[in-house]
Amino acid sequence: MSLYSQRGVSAQKEEVHQATEKLDQGLFPNAFCKIYPDYLGGDANWVNLMHADGAGTKSILAYLYWKETGDISVWKGIAQDAIVMNIDDLLCVGIHDNLLFSSTIDRNKRLIPGEVLSAIIAGTQDFFDELKGFGVNIHYLGGETADVGDVVRTIAVNGTMAARWPKNKLITNDRIIAGDVIVGFSSAGKTNYEKRYNSGIGSNGLTSARHDALHKFYGTAFPESFDTGLNEQVVYIGPNRMTDAVEVAGYGNSDIGHLLLSATRTYAPLLKVLLAEYFGDIHGLVHCSGGGQTKCLKYLPAPFRIIKDRLFEPPVVFDLLQQASGSDWREMYQVFNMGHRLELFTSEASAEKMIMAGKAFGIETQIIGRVEVSDKKELELVCPDGTIVNY
Amino acid sequence: MSLYSQRGVSAQKEEVHQATEKLDQGLFPNAFCKIYPDYLGGDANWVNLMHADGAGTKSILAYLYWKETGDISVWKGIAQDAIVMNIDDLLCVGIHDNLLFSSTIDRNKRLIPGEVLSAIIAGTQDFFDELKGFGVNIHYLGGETADVGDVVRTIAVNGTMAARWPKNKLITNDRIIAGDVIVGFSSAGKTNYEKRYNSGIGSNGLTSARHDALHKFYGTAFPESFDTGLNEQVVYIGPNRMTDAVEVAGYGNSDIGHLLLSATRTYAPLLKVLLAEYFGDIHGLVHCSGGGQTKCLKYLPAPFRIIKDRLFEPPVVFDLLQQASGSDWREMYQVFNMGHRLELFTSEASAEKMIMAGKAFGIETQIIGRVEVSDKKELELVCPDGTIVNY
Repeated sequence: MSLYSQRGVSAQKEEVHQATEKLDQGLFPNAFCKIYPDYLGGDANWVNLMHADGAGTKSILAYLYWKETGDISVWKGIAQDAIVMNIDDLLCVGIHDNLLFSSTIDRNKRLIPGEVLSAIIAGTQDFFDELKGFGVNIHYLGGETADVGDVVRTIAVNGTMAARWPKNKLITNDRIIAGDVIVGFSSAGKTNYEKRYNSGIGSNGLTSARHDALHKFYGTAFPESFDTGLNEQVVYIGPNRMTDAVEVAGYGNSDIGHLLLSATRTYAPLLKVLLAEYFGDIHGLVHCSGGGQTKCLKYLPAPFRIIKDRLFEPPVVFDLLQQASGSDWREMYQVFNMGHRLELFTSEASAEKMIMAGKAFGIETQIIGRVEVSDKKELELVCPDGTIVNY
Repeated sequence: MSLYSQRGVSAQKEEVHQATEKLDQGLFPNAFCKIYPDYLGGDANWVNLMHADGAGTKSILAYLYWKETGDISVWKGIAQDAIVMNIDDLLCVGIHDNLLFSSTIDRNKRLIPGEVLSAIIAGTQDFFDELKGFGVNIHYLGGETADVGDVVRTIAVNGTMAARWPKNKLITNDRIIAGDVIVGFSSAGKTNYEKRYNSGIGSNGLTSARHDALHKFYGTAFPESFDTGLNEQVVYIGPNRMTDAVEVAGYGNSDIGHLLLSATRTYAPLLKVLLAEYFGDIHGLVHCSGGGQTKCLKYLPAPFRIIKDRLFEPPVVFDLLQQASGSDWREMYQVFNMGHRLELFTSEASAEKMIMAGKAFGIETQIIGRVEVSDKKELELVCPDGTIVNY
C-alpha cells in the first residue's frame, strides 16, 4: 500500500467515479469538464457549466506557516489555489472569461479567527482584480462561511464557478489525433504576471508533500493539522521545518514553506490569447491536476499511445519531495505535476506559435511529447534519469 | 458565554459579515440573497445569482446514526439538507425553477466509504427527481468530492446553485410595510409531498442539538464526531441515545435520531404556486435559517417593529432540546426555527389565500405576527408560556 493510500487519499478517485457514474455526464464525454445544455439561456448554440474545487489540504500548510511565523499573507495564496483549481479546469474546455464565482469556506472558529477569513475573502477579490487586467473577468457573487469545528479541524476553502459559453468556442478534446504533439507549459519559474518565483507545486499531492517534507514537530505542536487516526508512520515523516532555507537556482533564497505554499499558477492570461488567436489549432487541453502526468489518459477520444519523452526537468520542490519520501517515479508522476500543469495538443506545424505565446508570458514552454496510434489508451513517460514508466 | 459560543458557533456570524462587507453586495440590499446583473445573458431585465450552503454539522448526526444502526438511508436526508438550504434561500427572492446545482463533498476516506458517497450523490439526484414532479427543475451539473482527512474529521456536504431570473419576478423585501401581517409556514408535521413526519429541525442549530441531546457515550465511542479541543463540559451533555424512542403526538413512535436527522423540508412546491398566483401580494419572504426567528431583522427595508405574538407551538423536538440544555427562550428562538422556517409578509387582506395555499399542501399555516412602525429595527417574540423576548 502506497504512502498516498495510507494517508487516505486516492489519486485516481475510483470511489468517486463509481458514485457519480449514473449522473448525466453531459454533452461531450471527452471534454475536460462536464458540459450541459444552456438551461439558463435556452439557446441551442450555447452551453452551461458549473465547476467545484478547492485548496484541499494545502490550507493546512497555510495554517502551519501562519501559526509558526505570524505571516497572515499566506492565506491569499489559498484563495488563489481555490480559484485556479476551478478556472484552469474550465480553461481546458475553452472557457476563459465572464465567469461567476461563489466561495464555500468551512472553518473551526476556535482556531481560525475572523482575520483569516478576511485575508481569504479579500485575497479572492484581489486575485479577480488582477485577472481583470488580462481580460479575464470573474464576478464574485458571494458564498457561505460556516462555523463547523466538529466537522473541520482547521479550515476548508472551496469555490464553485458557473459559466455560459458559445458551443462553437468549446475545446472538447475530440480533435486530438495521432501525430499531434503535446506542448507543455511550465508550472514553475516566474511569469510576467506573477510577483515572485512559483515552485510549481500547484494544489495536488499536498497531503503527501506536507507529510513527506515536514518534521514530526508539526504533528506534536499542531495535532489539529492531521487525521489523528492515521498510522503514525505516515504522519510528518520529513526532515524540514517550514522556515528552512532553500536555494532556488536563478531565484535566490526561499524557504520550504514558500515552496510548498506557492500559489497555483493560472494559465488564464495565456489561454485568453491562445484561444482568441489559434482556436482552430488547439486539438485538446488537459490540466495536469489530480493524477498528475497521467491525467491525460481520461480525456482521449480514441485509443492512443501518449508518449511524454521530453518532459521538463522537475522543479526543485519535487526533487526535495522525492528525496524526502523515496517515492519512485511512477508515484511521483501520478501524484504531482512534476513540471507542467497545462498541456496542449496540436499539430507539429502549429506547435511553434503556441511555444512563442507561452514564452511571451514568461512561461517556459516546450514540446513534451506526442500522440501515436495504439489499440488501447496508454501512456509512456521518460523520466529525468531515463527510466521509462508505463501507465 | 453561551453554550453555543463555547462550541465555536456564532448564530449571528459577526466575523463573517465583517470579512465580506467590502464585497459587492448586489443590486437589492434588503433581498434575502445577493442579486447581481445578468453577466451570463447580458440582458438588463434579468439577474444572476449564485448561492452556497450545506448540511453543516448535521452530517455528524447521520454518521453517528449510520455507525450505530447500519442504516445508510440517513445519508439521503443529508443530501436533501444541503439542497434545501440553498433552494429555500433562493425561494425567498422569488426563484423557484430552472436552477443549476453543483455539489462539494469533502470526506475523510478512512471513515467514509464509497457507499456513503453513492448514497449522498444518488440521494441528490433522487430529490431533484421528486421536485421535478412539482414543476421545480434543478439540473445537477456535477461537483467535486475530495479526500481530505487531514482537514475533515468525517464528512462535509455542501452545494452551490446558480440561477438566471427575470428582474420583474424578484422578491426584494422592499415592499414590506407597516401594517403587514406575517404568515408562517410550519417546519414540522407531514406535507403531502413528504413520506414521513418531519420534526421541523431543519439544518440550523445542529451543533447545539447534537451536544445537548446526545449522551457522553458518543464522545467516547466516536471521538471523530467532535472537536476534541472543546471544553469537555459542552460536549455530548445530553440524556439520549439516537435509538431512544420518542412518541410524536399524532404520528406514533419515532426515535431521537430520526427527530434530529429529519431532512429539512423544502417549501419549493408551495412557493411555486404562491409566486405564480399571488406574486403581487407577496411583500417579503424570509427563510428562518441561521438566527432562527430573529433572521427577519436583517431584511427589513425600514425601521419596523416586528411582533411575533402568534407563533406555532414548538414541535416536540425543540421541547426535548430545551429540556436537555436548559436554554432560555432568547437562545432557543435565536438558534432554532422553533416551528416555522418560512415567513411571508403580506397585507392582512391577502393572508387568507396564502394560508389556504399552505394548507392545500398539508402545511400548517397561520398568521404568526405583524409589522409596526418604529424608530429602529426591533423584534418582539411572545413565547409559548407568555414570556416576551425583545431583540
